[in-house]
Amino acid sequence: MSSGSRLDGAVLVVGTGLLGTSIALALRRAGVEVLLDDVDGDNLRVAIDRGAGTRLQPSDTPDVVVVACPPRHASQVLADVSQRFPRATLTDVTSIKAPVLAQAIERGADPQRLVGGHPMAGREVSGPAGARADLFDDRLWILTPAQATSDHVMQVHRLVSTCGGYAVEMTATEHDLAVALVSHAPQVVSSALAAQLVDADTTHVRIAGQGLRDMTRIAASHAPMWNDILAVNGGPVADILDKLAQELQATAVALRAGQQAEIAALLTSGAEGQARIPGKHGAAAERYSEVTVQLADRSGELARMFVAASDADVNVEDVRIEHVLGRPSGLVSLFVSPDTGTTLADALRARDFDVRS
Amino acid sequence: MSSGSRLDGAVLVVGTGLLGTSIALALRRAGVEVLLDDVDGDNLRVAIDRGAGTRLQPSDTPDVVVVACPPRHASQVLADVSQRFPRATLTDVTSIKAPVLAQAIERGADPQRLVGGHPMAGREVSGPAGARADLFDDRLWILTPAQATSDHVMQVHRLVSTCGGYAVEMTATEHDLAVALVSHAPQVVSSALAAQLVDADTTHVRIAGQGLRDMTRIAASHAPMWNDILAVNGGPVADILDKLAQELQATAVALRAGQQAEIAALLTSGAEGQARIPGKHGAAAERYSEVTVQLADRSGELARMFVAASDADVNVEDVRIEHVLGRPSGLVSLFVSPDTGTTLADALRARDFDVRS
Repeated sequence: MSSGSRLDGAVLVVGTGLLGTSIALALRRAGVEVLLDDVDGDNLRVAIDRGAGTRLQPSDTPDVVVVACPPRHASQVLADVSQRFPRATLTDVTSIKAPVLAQAIERGADPQRLVGGHPMAGREVSGPAGARADLFDDRLWILTPAQATSDHVMQVHRLVSTCGGYAVEMTATEHDLAVALVSHAPQVVSSALAAQLVDADTTHVRIAGQGLRDMTRIAASHAPMWNDILAVNGGPVADILDKLAQELQATAVALRAGQQAEIAALLTSGAEGQARIPGKHGAAAERYSEVTVQLADRSGELARMFVAASDADVNVEDVRIEHVLGRPSGLVSLFVSPDTGTTLADALRARDFDVRS
Repeated sequence: MSSGSRLDGAVLVVGTGLLGTSIALALRRAGVEVLLDDVDGDNLRVAIDRGAGTRLQPSDTPDVVVVACPPRHASQVLADVSQRFPRATLTDVTSIKAPVLAQAIERGADPQRLVGGHPMAGREVSGPAGARADLFDDRLWILTPAQATSDHVMQVHRLVSTCGGYAVEMTATEHDLAVALVSHAPQVVSSALAAQLVDADTTHVRIAGQGLRDMTRIAASHAPMWNDILAVNGGPVADILDKLAQELQATAVALRAGQQAEIAALLTSGAEGQARIPGKHGAAAERYSEVTVQLADRSGELARMFVAASDADVNVEDVRIEHVLGRPSGLVSLFVSPDTGTTLADALRARDFDVRS
């Protein structure tokens, strides 16, 4: 879908938080001229100091404007830059598309130049200090072109590929339904499940294992941000919550009636749905090979293992130490790129490690 | 609660799967005489080969019998051993207590000698080959004594502390409500959430991030085992599912009506409930110190770091490499016992590592 060709003209990034500054750094990495603007002067200075681009000047005429402001400001800023730069291609990075884009057009943004965008990347940190030029490498970047002309759509495709991402087009409505399903509704479910623990006996909560811990992890997320997101995408999220509520109620009825076949069907569907989700270390990480080693219970064995990997010139991308309900065991998994998996296993065996896979 | 004193007489373990063999190994570690029995001759031989004990002989008279059979057989086996060993203390390890113990008594088990047990430990592997003597070290082990006399209750406390665990008493009903809350209902929720993905568009599923991945991980669990568990603990699980369904429906109504205060309240309760769950690396692991290092992007840095830890005689219990949506970043966390956290940080700084905490 991406053109593969690179951007020529200048790109203006409005908003120098994590995403905006990361886009700017990714573009600078590719040699693109980047102009920066932000109402937050501190963020702007940090971004400029990091080499993300130069401060926007009144005479500048960017070819592309990327609006990377918080969702509640994005529509107005899109309308503003549309009027200020009457020929520029316009895009944004907000995580909800249909209402933001509709409001932008209502407020005067040119629909023929507006291509909604949502890069599927982020970090748990925020602000320009956490930005990275490689944040979008191999990441999905959803585009919702609507009424934009093909020239402007192509410009945004170039922007995405220059940033290292790959673009997938869908309608804004389709996008909002998709994120409701895979992100917003799960957030509500996690919060609702965790909320059940508020009044629970301490001894009962203490029994909690890894399953509950995983399922409630995102319930600790930043509440105000989620409140904003859920407010804007309320309809699609509500539809999914209704379906889930029905499913849970039907399951409760089946449990009380001892209808094991219905329970089995739900468990089977769950396993089937779970299997559709891309690799456990993220979409890009399905390309890792896993080498599992049973370490002897002697001090220095981890160090010896990493030295062996390093001596074999193998780059370890991730490490997992198997934990038996909270305590480490001797089983360690190393994740490496597939072309080095065999090299690593051989190198470890050569130094008498007990390689299991 | 535990007496601290050790077991004297012989313990019979019936069922040499993961839990039974681990109990046997833990008892042998403490020098206790262990007798083994299993209808599965292969498992029994593996357990004996691993030094878990000796095969039960007709003349043996164990002081304590631990029934570590699958839940569907446990009641009958408890009744059988109660009759065969009319003075032995009886306990089990099944994960649902009230129905199993009631059935055992119905079938003839002596209620005065029967103390239900549920060690909160397990592994993702099964069978005697995966058993470990230290599986229960520092683990919670729930006891549901009911009508047992204090002598027999005390014997089971000794069993638990000899195995390295710590006993907490509650009623069987309370136990079943607690595991419904922290384990069984979350399993159903995970399955129901994952089941929503079965008919979803592939592009939509591809957008899934770590949040959905975490929340649906246990949906991949062994369905037949869960079907058994849910069938036996249906009532308590159904009650929690009903409450959750009501919460989700109320949230859907609030989302459609734009009632942000209600959404905010749910998100806040969720964060509050989540905070009650013991430490992220498991209950015992709250005792870890975390040392975070920003590694330079040079090959061999991981190895150099582990060598520094090893040279400082610090035992690394766990490693986390920060991943930005599937790709490794330079931020690595090392988890060590608190008395070595400062030593490790100093040792790393002395070798010019960028220690962040």
